[in-house]
Amino acid sequence: MKNSLKVAMVVIGDEILNGRTTDLNANWLAKFLFKEGMLLTSTQFIRDNESEIIETLNRALNEADIVITSGGIGPTLDDMTKKCLAKMFDKKIIENQTVIPVVEENYRRFGRSWNPSLNFYHHFPEDFLAINNPKGLAPGLGFYLADRKKLLLSGPGVPREFHDMVSLEFFPMIQKYFRGQFVKNYQTIVRTHSVPEEKIFGELEPELWNKLEKFGKVSSLPHTIGIDIIISYNGTEENHQLTQNKIKDIFEQSKMQEYVWQYGNLSLSELILKKAVEKKLTFGFAESCTGGLTSSKFTDLSGSSACFMGSIVSYDNSIKEKILGVQAETLKTFGAVSEQSVKEMCEGGKKVLNVDICVAITGIAGPTGGSAEKPVGTVYFGVHSKFGTQFETTVVPGDRPRKKDRFSDRALLLLLEEIEKH
Amino acid sequence: MKNSLKVAMVVIGDEILNGRTTDLNANWLAKFLFKEGMLLTSTQFIRDNESEIIETLNRALNEADIVITSGGIGPTLDDMTKKCLAKMFDKKIIENQTVIPVVEENYRRFGRSWNPSLNFYHHFPEDFLAINNPKGLAPGLGFYLADRKKLLLSGPGVPREFHDMVSLEFFPMIQKYFRGQFVKNYQTIVRTHSVPEEKIFGELEPELWNKLEKFGKVSSLPHTIGIDIIISYNGTEENHQLTQNKIKDIFEQSKMQEYVWQYGNLSLSELILKKAVEKKLTFGFAESCTGGLTSSKFTDLSGSSACFMGSIVSYDNSIKEKILGVQAETLKTFGAVSEQSVKEMCEGGKKVLNVDICVAITGIAGPTGGSAEKPVGTVYFGVHSKFGTQFETTVVPGDRPRKKDRFSDRALLLLLEEIEKH
Repeated sequence: MKNSLKVAMVVIGDEILNGRTTDLNANWLAKFLFKEGMLLTSTQFIRDNESEIIETLNRALNEADIVITSGGIGPTLDDMTKKCLAKMFDKKIIENQTVIPVVEENYRRFGRSWNPSLNFYHHFPEDFLAINNPKGLAPGLGFYLADRKKLLLSGPGVPREFHDMVSLEFFPMIQKYFRGQFVKNYQTIVRTHSVPEEKIFGELEPELWNKLEKFGKVSSLPHTIGIDIIISYNGTEENHQLTQNKIKDIFEQSKMQEYVWQYGNLSLSELILKKAVEKKLTFGFAESCTGGLTSSKFTDLSGSSACFMGSIVSYDNSIKEKILGVQAETLKTFGAVSEQSVKEMCEGGKKVLNVDICVAITGIAGPTGGSAEKPVGTVYFGVHSKFGTQFETTVVPGDRPRKKDRFSDRALLLLLEEIEKH
Repeated sequence: MKNSLKVAMVVIGDEILNGRTTDLNANWLAKFLFKEGMLLTSTQFIRDNESEIIETLNRALNEADIVITSGGIGPTLDDMTKKCLAKMFDKKIIENQTVIPVVEENYRRFGRSWNPSLNFYHHFPEDFLAINNPKGLAPGLGFYLADRKKLLLSGPGVPREFHDMVSLEFFPMIQKYFRGQFVKNYQTIVRTHSVPEEKIFGELEPELWNKLEKFGKVSSLPHTIGIDIIISYNGTEENHQLTQNKIKDIFEQSKMQEYVWQYGNLSLSELILKKAVEKKLTFGFAESCTGGLTSSKFTDLSGSSACFMGSIVSYDNSIKEKILGVQAETLKTFGAVSEQSVKEMCEGGKKVLNVDICVAITGIAGPTGGSAEKPVGTVYFGVHSKFGTQFETTVVPGDRPRKKDRFSDRALLLLLEEIEKH
């Protein structure tokens, strides 16, 4: 991946470093740059501290062609990016007349009007370009260092504002200044389940890594339900297709074959949606310990209403009985976390939701509620369709939200497998 | 916040910078260090590149007392932290006998046994300390630079492994090497809703920022339902109590009073749980556009089963009719996204879930499905309890997952207000 346009990101804000706010721009920008054929070389989170900001930006400008910052351009007194940029390039902050139309336009978009008594948005470093904020009020800042052929772009910290400013404003500027310098990155992605990293490369297929490395850079990424194996390379679309096929052949002739759930980059939900629509199937969930997370994950997808009808979040046993029709006797004898209860949950769920497939999940998310025979992390899944009822039980690690995450992804995997049977 | 122990974090891995993986350790570590009285000065994400790793670690060791890395200590060939650390300090990688018991113990915890043919975990830089991995197999690395009084600690990238290694292994080491150097950080947090940042500080209370700055560093953080105003300072527990009370007085005598939903640091869910348990109330949701997210957020809390009974995720209209009892006529005449439908959803939900309060949410999460009179982002909330039914409608910005996030937090705010009425 040589000769790509190099980008360095700098995220500015005390709130990130004291943990008060989770940065949501770094990962978004990483994906965006990768897709557009640029190379993110580093991302740094720093505090609202003038000398640290200036030092970090200078270093970033040395190592990359483009530096993108997020945070610190708002109206409050802790927003100091503007001041630092001015100082760094020895520019005065002036009442910049060229900025005013940009600010006015930002306000107009929200049905409001701006005047200089509202804030200091029009106080701007000399010679800097004011950049539209399609989803907010504060203008971004742009500065092209013509002698060094470097571009510095500063956007807001608020994620939706940052994302739109980068894709609608920064990116066209980058294309203008760095025409023809984009390199196409490709990846072949093999998504596997149920086998740990070490077992794949140590036990099942000790030669796999070396075989894959002939095609490009290999990486192996654990996820909630298994390992993604990723091979990255440059080249042409045609070569990419060829490489994909060759890698698929390697896997299909390996012991890993039965553990691959996808050759490709779709999420579990995306693949479920695609296959369920193809096969005209509907489904829903009867969720206990996951508390609605499985349904929520799937409905993050636009178009999910084509196959997802709805769910019963049967947290309390009274809901399991009353709405799903689980027998009080079953709950009493075997407990809510049992194969017997999950069977009645998915069968009742299929009926009440009137769907082709219902997946039920009941488990112990913890940290309390475990026992010697059913420790915290124990979960039962039931999948009911015209083919009958399938069960699975397992124990997963992690804290409570993490367990919910793993429980729900496993439920989606079981749903995918059931859809594939149809 | 002077004289705190300074920590720099370095996250190593191509998968972070190409966007394939979202780092989940930086925010976690930031919170952990803040709580324990240390100061995170920077976090840097870098690639699996030997010279960049060494250069970044050297710089981090210059600026901080403690450097913590995450990533690159696993068994596969792209894991190169160990190699870089050895090179950086001019140490050989040897078959280190002192590492073997640590690796064996890590394996034993998973009911497995280790031998040298499995991987290279026992190949370790000379003079480095192997660190227990309470949730995984690969040992962490520790190195104390006695002459410079600096500590370098390397942990795994997998979040649950990293979190446990830091809190159970790294932290006791830090306490040992830097005894008495911890400074207690305090924050007073005022959480507000429904007023934008600019209106608070520009229009309603132009003097507020200056008044608060007398107590410490002020920051203002937008969230899904409003703005958090945070005042940070060092000191004693007693002084902190006093400061909290003074700041509360300032707000209670200001125009912001009616927009404060909490003086404190609980999440919406945590505050709801606390108040619902106090008042012995039960509740549930009838969720359409949020697809289970509201229920899932609340059930992230341990103990949520004390008041949350369950929910109906009525994504398809057939579920709204069949389970919630919404009239087909209502859906046909007014549409599913309407005050009339949300009324029947929350009233039907209260009945079928048999709860004290039911909150219903129906809206257009987009990106498709909007119209001129009901654009994408339109949402109706209905809250039904013994006090009758309350409505609210609004239009929220953001992409689809972001809209779901805002819809569900707004629903939780309305639930909180309804609980407070009881």
